Amino acid sequence: MRVLGIDPGTRVTGYGCIEPAPRLGARPKLIEAGVVRLAGRDHTPPLGARLIELERDLVEMLGRLRPDVVCIESLFSNPKHPGTVITMAHARGVILLAASRSVGEVVEVPPAEVKRAVAGSGKAEKSQMQSSVQRVLGLAEPPSPADVADALAIAICVGQRRGLPA
Amino acid sequence: MRVLGIDPGTRVTGYGCIEPAPRLGARPKLIEAGVVRLAGRDHTPPLGARLIELERDLVEMLGRLRPDVVCIESLFSNPKHPGTVITMAHARGVILLAASRSVGEVVEVPPAEVKRAVAGSGKAEKSQMQSSVQRVLGLAEPPSPADVADALAIAICVGQRRGLPA
Repeated sequence: MRVLGIDPGTRVTGYGCIEPAPRLGARPKLIEAGVVRLAGRDHTPPLGARLIELERDLVEMLGRLRPDVVCIESLFSNPKHPGTVITMAHARGVILLAASRSVGEVVEVPPAEVKRAVAGSGKAEKSQMQSSVQRVLGLAEPPSPADVADALAIAICVGQRRGLPA
Repeated sequence: MRVLGIDPGTRVTGYGCIEPAPRLGARPKLIEAGVVRLAGRDHTPPLGARLIELERDLVEMLGRLRPDVVCIESLFSNPKHPGTVITMAHARGVILLAASRSVGEVVEVPPAEVKRAVAGSGKAEKSQMQSSVQRVLGLAEPPSPADVADALAIAICVGQRRGLPA
């Protein structure tokens, strides 16, 4: 089984694909992780053009990785920075569209649940998430940027619930 | 020239397509207006499924109406109800994607500018917008629901700026 986590952002969307641990005490296996950048540094194309690019990259990635489940953090309804979250929600709409079209199951997980599952605390900082993901997957370095670690953390969290036989 | 206005919502997305007035004092011509409903009353499919349906309806509509310009209201960065606006921004992302892919030009217009252009005041109420759109287009009834009037108002506003020779 393959689980793909996606961490949407206005400029960078992180993704991480794992196979959940086959038994208790085993590690999940990293398949691939990285970022999709929505715009170069020197130019900012209109949001529509960035969303076309994002969708193209997602369709390519979903076709290549063929995940069984796609997971994404659920959104706060009362965020601290509504402007940023609203722009990000545009990207999230396109991600939900592309994922729902190509994958049977799309799961939303509250951010605190992801943090608790991977770092042991619902209030873990970004750097703690990076080192926890490094430890769980047995990587030589912490995943960077933080968007990649967050995407892997979502996949690990959902994989823990799904990977083991009941 | 055809201008298509879209008013995205979490349940209902209004649309209105016009040909701008060919000369000062003439009326814009209504081509078609209506709503795309995102879910029935009795069931609420997951957001991803609703977005797939929305995109399918938009692609069909854009292919049928063949607008030269698509226009949509720009968003507040500090809305009164962030939760609603965030859900709506998911639909808006899919609309920008579909429109940018099929139409050369996608324009965002501040809501107050639309209200000023059509009803004479940046603070016009929904019912004023409905009666103003009725008057401008010479319709027998005010467009209903308000989402249709809002979509037509955006198209009228952009059409006023584009339709007349300079």
